[in-house]
Amino acid sequence: MSELRQDPTTREWVIIAPERAKRPQQAPKPRRADRLPDWDGSCPFCPGNESQTPPEVFRLPLSGQAWEVRVIPNRFAALMPDGDITRREGGRIFRKMDGIGAHEVIIETPSHNTPTALMSYEQVQKVLIAYQERYNTLKKNWQLKFITIFKNHGQASGTSLIHPHSQLVATPVLAPYYHRRLDVAVRYYADVGKCLYCDLLAEELEKGERIVAQTKEFVVLHPYASRAPWETWIIPKRHYASFGLFPDEHLAELARVLKDTLLCLYRGLDNPAFNYMVNTTITEDEENPYYHWHIRIVPRLNLIAGFEMGSGIYISTALPEETASLMKQVAYSLPEGECPTLKQKA
Amino acid sequence: MSELRQDPTTREWVIIAPERAKRPQQAPKPRRADRLPDWDGSCPFCPGNESQTPPEVFRLPLSGQAWEVRVIPNRFAALMPDGDITRREGGRIFRKMDGIGAHEVIIETPSHNTPTALMSYEQVQKVLIAYQERYNTLKKNWQLKFITIFKNHGQASGTSLIHPHSQLVATPVLAPYYHRRLDVAVRYYADVGKCLYCDLLAEELEKGERIVAQTKEFVVLHPYASRAPWETWIIPKRHYASFGLFPDEHLAELARVLKDTLLCLYRGLDNPAFNYMVNTTITEDEENPYYHWHIRIVPRLNLIAGFEMGSGIYISTALPEETASLMKQVAYSLPEGECPTLKQKA
Repeated sequence: MSELRQDPTTREWVIIAPERAKRPQQAPKPRRADRLPDWDGSCPFCPGNESQTPPEVFRLPLSGQAWEVRVIPNRFAALMPDGDITRREGGRIFRKMDGIGAHEVIIETPSHNTPTALMSYEQVQKVLIAYQERYNTLKKNWQLKFITIFKNHGQASGTSLIHPHSQLVATPVLAPYYHRRLDVAVRYYADVGKCLYCDLLAEELEKGERIVAQTKEFVVLHPYASRAPWETWIIPKRHYASFGLFPDEHLAELARVLKDTLLCLYRGLDNPAFNYMVNTTITEDEENPYYHWHIRIVPRLNLIAGFEMGSGIYISTALPEETASLMKQVAYSLPEGECPTLKQKA
Repeated sequence: MSELRQDPTTREWVIIAPERAKRPQQAPKPRRADRLPDWDGSCPFCPGNESQTPPEVFRLPLSGQAWEVRVIPNRFAALMPDGDITRREGGRIFRKMDGIGAHEVIIETPSHNTPTALMSYEQVQKVLIAYQERYNTLKKNWQLKFITIFKNHGQASGTSLIHPHSQLVATPVLAPYYHRRLDVAVRYYADVGKCLYCDLLAEELEKGERIVAQTKEFVVLHPYASRAPWETWIIPKRHYASFGLFPDEHLAELARVLKDTLLCLYRGLDNPAFNYMVNTTITEDEENPYYHWHIRIVPRLNLIAGFEMGSGIYISTALPEETASLMKQVAYSLPEGECPTLKQKA
């Protein structure tokens, strides 16, 4: 029998129905991508093609000939810095504003064919440094209320370019999902007087069944009401509402945890398409006691269909307790030196 | 420059960024399905294979040898009728319940290869009769609070079986998207004293620029803050909160409007993948003055990516005013006899 579980961070219900994993498939499976070259002359993100993109706004190393990480405005930006932030009403019903904001691309490596799972820890750390740098620069613009950093990997993730990259979108409006999580976290704080996520972590660590691993500063877990099989969260143990204010001395550790988590998914699920999102608080309230930033990784093993689109209820075909256990098994089955952070006692 | 528009029915913002339609694609496009046979011996929904599915709960015609529409419990149901509706608390954080509910499949035609766009009006009407019949039967079960009827068509829609079918899911919890729309509609009613959707329709009909067509009882429009290019709504002109209480004498007209709308998308976008959802009110409050049932059709031209998943903000690459105008052009370009309802003066 399936279960309905309420996501404690949104109060929304999800259906966990492992039986549905057995249903037949008539629709053709997407083709596997062909083996990729390390450099592609037609790729605007490959070295030598920098003139095909807008000028960079940040890079690592900060100077020198060759870049290792490069941040550029998205050439096909959904939002642009210039415009009028005034909200314009059209009668009682319609409200709009200029599409102001920022939309940037973080090119994570010069290598066309090296996903995060196969990067060095140092390279992943540089990507995280670029995230935080751009976050903290953009938040100084008072018009930008909310900053989303995310990554699309693989065809089913919605990416249009293969070269490893992530994106940052800064909006002058609150994102609905953040709004919902904030609302739930504020109520919890009003009721209980503590951070919901801190309490959730304590409960999860006590139970243990959904914990994949923990390090000094982070917990890797499969959430209680996961929306998709193998959904994985990386949560800092200590309370920080904002990714922007997270101490940069912990980014090296975060890089190890993130890379090892993605490598374990890469090995265990054969390089699945996935999205990850850095869920953080709003730019104007970075030190609040109720929100708690974290990274959410969602493998895209199933397409979002009409039920999810119509209802907002997600159906997952796996119990997070089982996938957490499987993920630990995958980690322990890997050769020595692979995924060491996931092999620590959880 | 792009625009941010607030969806008047959810108060959530979407980004409308036509420039992004021009971005390059490195990822391979999904293959087109091969030409399908009219009957597939291995398809559990084709005539002759009825024993491969659970026994039917409804059919049309009601008796006789051959069925034209057939409703069965989903063999891989996300929710099942038996179980305990009690919500069980796990401390302050975790809450769950048995996965009770109903999950049914409406097999829309005996023909393996006839999508709604190419069905007869009479056949589409039978599908709608089956929807309403099942809706009104299931709502009598007090445990089922909310019923979603939806259809997935084409590979990118998330469907696993090709044979034309739609689905019904009845849940013991409110769906988050419904909850959000209800909340907005109730506030509007409290403020303005009228149904938000009735007011929205009046405004749209006065402006005209997003109206594709109207008939005696229905309006076809592209919504102000559409989440995807060519998103199309079919809204009844008269106020009915619930699809279940919509007078069945109008189902023949609805069948004509739905089929012609889908045929126009089929011709204009070359048989796109799409989802449609019947958005209706909760089963325990079907005659309220603030909600207004409607059908939402979303072509799946782009995949949902990390930004949408992380933020809940959708990016559409087309202005609804332009796609509404294009859709009218497509309708008028079709041979006489195709899409007559969309050729009526809007």
